[in-house]
Amino acid sequence: MGTSLDAATSAGQLSAELLGAMAYGELSAFGRLSLDSREAPTLHDRSVLAKIAVGAYGNFALLSDRLWEIGVDPEHAMLPFQRSFDHFHERTKPGDWFESVMKAYVIDTVSSDFYRAVSMFLDSTTQHFVERVASPDQATEVLRVLLNRALADDPRLASRLALWGRRLVGEALTQAQRVGVEHPVLGPALKNTPDARAAVKTLTAELAAKHARRMTGLGLTA
Amino acid sequence: MGTSLDAATSAGQLSAELLGAMAYGELSAFGRLSLDSREAPTLHDRSVLAKIAVGAYGNFALLSDRLWEIGVDPEHAMLPFQRSFDHFHERTKPGDWFESVMKAYVIDTVSSDFYRAVSMFLDSTTQHFVERVASPDQATEVLRVLLNRALADDPRLASRLALWGRRLVGEALTQAQRVGVEHPVLGPALKNTPDARAAVKTLTAELAAKHARRMTGLGLTA
Repeated sequence: MGTSLDAATSAGQLSAELLGAMAYGELSAFGRLSLDSREAPTLHDRSVLAKIAVGAYGNFALLSDRLWEIGVDPEHAMLPFQRSFDHFHERTKPGDWFESVMKAYVIDTVSSDFYRAVSMFLDSTTQHFVERVASPDQATEVLRVLLNRALADDPRLASRLALWGRRLVGEALTQAQRVGVEHPVLGPALKNTPDARAAVKTLTAELAAKHARRMTGLGLTA
Repeated sequence: MGTSLDAATSAGQLSAELLGAMAYGELSAFGRLSLDSREAPTLHDRSVLAKIAVGAYGNFALLSDRLWEIGVDPEHAMLPFQRSFDHFHERTKPGDWFESVMKAYVIDTVSSDFYRAVSMFLDSTTQHFVERVASPDQATEVLRVLLNRALADDPRLASRLALWGRRLVGEALTQAQRVGVEHPVLGPALKNTPDARAAVKTLTAELAAKHARRMTGLGLTA
């Protein structure tokens, strides 16, 4: 009975940690996107990125409510992940508006793929919840259209954005692995089993392949 | 008939200009509040200010939709007011979290009073619309409670925030007058009639008095 109680606690902790990482990810994305929106070339473009930031806040609010529901203070659940997310944003400051839009698109898509993959190891309620929050939505499509339009207007952007996309996905995958390792429950488990290490490798390869397909879809060399 | 058409056009332009000023005010408040939220002492406080920023974006979206409804491109309606709002934010950069909360509260309340007062001169549809967007709401109350709590926790804050509040309202009223003067339709009218000048004086005094009552409510010397 001790074991099944431990397993239940541990599963609960895993959910809380994933939701905490996602919550801080959305709150920090809100901050970063709203900051980047100020660099938009037109007020219309500014409002588009602001709307994406508002969507990130909406996801944060859903995650925060869900954490309270399972008896966890969101602040407590988010804190362990704050440093690595902030570090990621520090390392990937967009140089201009187009790089901001690309960053928003890459974060939105890669992190959704990551969270959904990880949620497969959790209880079905958490799994469905994560599926709902981390799905490609209208915002994803708006960003894709913005990028498509920018690339059509100025084909010289392609090589710069392709490079930036590679840089971003590299940092994002490093970040995802760091989130895994810093995960107080999942981390130690991952480090000590060859199966888990293999699973992380497989997941990283899958995330990279999905990203590459999206970049190709934009006409960029992934 | 020429005259009544001119009058109608001019009334429509006045509405478009007021809505444009409000729209840019909300979009710039969104940017400023989300930036300030990053300085919050806790993630909880950060999320509170982020939510207020999201509310400002929501108002911007309503105003933007309304402008499209009356056949005006929001970008076009906002541009004439961008410089003076940006200038206001440049001149009133909060020094810390408490000054950010105070600024959010002062902007929220004084600008609502201002927009509602000006809307009285417009058609009833615009008037009702402005009344709905620029009313004290949950955000206003959240900010008031935050300030009350901060002042109770640290009474030494009172003199600093009282000074900051006076500075903010001074800048806000200068800003409101500037918005009036830069108003391509309203501006020239205001400058040329003694009645209008008197009306501006009365309005300024009313806004200052309402602000003073709110500061007194917080236990601050206005």
